[in-house]
This record gives sequence, C-alpha cells and structure tokens, in this order.
Amino acid sequence: MDTADHALERGYLHRKDDYLKRLRRIEGQARGLQRMVEDERYCIDILQQISAVTKALQAVSLGLLEEHLQHCVLRAAAAGGPEADEKIKEAYEAVARLVRS
Amino acid sequence: MDTADHALERGYLHRKDDYLKRLRRIEGQARGLQRMVEDERYCIDILQQISAVTKALQAVSLGLLEEHLQHCVLRAAAAGGPEADEKIKEAYEAVARLVRS
Amino acid sequence: MDTADHALERGYLHRKDDYLKRLRRIEGQARGLQRMVEDERYCIDILQQISAVTKALQAVSLGLLEEHLQHCVLRAAAAGGPEADEKIKEAYEAVARLVRS
Amino acid sequence: MDTADHALERGYLHRKDDYLKRLRRIEGQARGLQRMVEDERYCIDILQQISAVTKALQAVSLGLLEEHLQHCVLRAAAAGGPEADEKIKEAYEAVARLVRS
Repeated sequence: MDTADHALERGYLHRKDDYLKRLRRIEGQARGLQRMVEDERYCIDILQQISAVTKALQAVSLGLLEEHLQHCVLRAAAAGGPEADEKIKEAYEAVARLVRS
Repeated sequence: MDTADHALERGYLHRKDDYLKRLRRIEGQARGLQRMVEDERYCIDILQQISAVTKALQAVSLGLLEEHLQHCVLRAAAAGGPEADEKIKEAYEAVARLVRS
Repeated sequence: MDTADHALERGYLHRKDDYLKRLRRIEGQARGLQRMVEDERYCIDILQQISAVTKALQAVSLGLLEEHLQHCVLRAAAAGGPEADEKIKEAYEAVARLVRS
Repeated sequence: MDTADHALERGYLHRKDDYLKRLRRIEGQARGLQRMVEDERYCIDILQQISAVTKALQAVSLGLLEEHLQHCVLRAAAAGGPEADEKIKEAYEAVARLVRS
C-alpha cells in the first residue's frame, strides 16, 4: 500500500497528534488510579476516577469511528464490490463491540 | 420517492415482520413490568426483567443499524457527493446515541 | 410476610403510581415503534426513538435500585447476619446486570 | 481514623495487589494504544483494543463496588443513623455514574 493509499486508509491521520495526546492523558490517569489504590484511597473516589477514564476512552472510540466511516467506509463504498461490503461489516462489528462494552 | 427507491431507502424491509414480532414482544414485556409493579413484586425481580427488555431493544437497534449501513449508507456512498456525507454523519450520530444510551 | 413487612420489603411502594405511569408510557412507546416499522419509517428515526425508550427504562431501573438500597438493603444490613450478606449480593448482581446491559 | 477503622473503610485492601496488577496492565494497554496510533495502525484494530481496555476498567469498577457494598455500606448500615443514609446515597451515585459511562 503506497503512502497516499495508506493515508486514505487511516481516516484519523489528520488528528493523529490529538489522539496521541488524549491517549497519553489516559495512560497518566491509569497511573493515577494505581497511586489511589497504593494510597488506599476511598473506594468511591477511585470509582469516580474510573468513570472519567471510561468516558475519555469512549470519546476516543467515537472519534476514530467517525473518521473511519467518513474515510475508509466511504471510500470503499464508492469503489463498490466485495471490499465495500467487508468495510461495512467491519464497521458494524466495531459499533456492536462499542455498544456492548 | 417511488416504491423501488423507498425499498432501497429502508434497509430493513426484508425483515419487517421479524422486527414487528420483536417489538410486539417488547411491548408485552413492558405490560408485564406494569403487572410486576401492580403486584408489588420484589425490586430485584423487576430490575432483572428491565435488563432483559433493554437487551432486546439493543438487539433491535443493532439490527436496524447494520441494515442501514448495508443499504442506505452503502448506496449513498456509492452515489457520492453531499448525500453520502450526510448519510455517514447521520449513521455516526445514531451510533453515538446508541453508545451513550 | 405481613403487610408492614411487605411494605418495608418493597422500597418503591411510595412511588408505585409514578412507576406505573412511566411503564405505561414505555409500553406506548413500544407500540409507537411498531407503527414506525409498519409505516416503513426511516431507520435513523426508529433508532432515535429506541434510544429514548432505552433511556426511559434506564431511569426506571436506577430509581428502583436507589429505593432498594435505601430500604431493603439498609434494613437487612441493620439486622445483620446472613440476610444482610444475601441482600448485598443480590443488589450487586442487579448493578452488574444493569452496567452490562 | 486508626488503622483498624481505615481497613474497614477500604473494602478492597485484601485485594489491593490484584487491583494494582490489573491497573498496571491497563496502563500498559493505554501505552499500547499510543503505539498503535504512532504506527498508524488500522482504525478497526485500535477500536478493538479500546473495547478491551474499557471492559478491563469495567471489571475493576464492579470489583471495587462489590467490596464497597460488602464492607463500607454494610458496616455503616449496621451502625445506622445519618452515616448509613450517606453511604447508601454515595453507593447509588457511584452506580449511576457507572451505568451512564
């Protein structure tokens, strides 16, 4: 796959830095959760922080999914044929995992 | 919109009876929940039944979404232009509501 | 179980009418979904309505759970012994179902 | 709060090491997600990995919540009075956040 194709196949590249920044923050929050357990913090405070990390992950997922639909799925659908069906199937399965997680 | 177009725009028509049957069952379950409250049944039993209804609704949603992607979105994407972008946007917003509900 | 005990064991009785009203509305919404499919309405519109029903069910669940904790669990915990452990276990399993549905 | 009280107030202490291990793994997965974005991996693969991290966080939350109910809530409820009501309220709000995240 050449660079142009690669870029088309990764709808999120134009926001790569943003995603890296958000994932770094999530990594930091996961470290923070360890400190809270290490310091034997109150359960409710830890639960509150986990909900915040879960929301941050959900937002990253929805962002990636939106760009996948706008780029990878749209491009494959325009090309038609089995690749289009495969892309739609893949996108649907990712949505089903997201809904059930 | 003529009948052929209409059919293409409603990806679920080939499973219309199945969806009607499932939604009738969900309606019956909602009535059953009322009887449980009327009969002052134990809270945990009612909660268990609500989880079952929620799962049934989620399955209907995922089915409709899959068919929407396979038909409406795929068709619009193949046609390209602003309609394609609009369909992708709509599908994404439906997914986001589903994930957050 | 005499009436007084029964009332204590059903934390939601003071809001029984409110729950019945909300569940009747949910039943009506389920009927409305059938009409939307019968009328071959656009998939996205049906998905939007399902998300509304799911939210309504979630609110009923959280209300019942809150009252269960405030009445049934609190009362059993005050009495202590195996009944208290059982009530806590039951409440936790209801929460786990709710989180995973 | 003396050590004995502190231990009672932190239902999870007997599984502290297990939670630390699981949270370290989640931190590692968050780093792994950054590498996937850095390496411009396919969106669907990244989404799949995020669903796994979300499930791992959910399991930690449910574990902490179960222990909070079994220890902190049960103990406060047995003592009765305003502290019991406060603990139940706190536990309910944590559940509501978990359900909505």
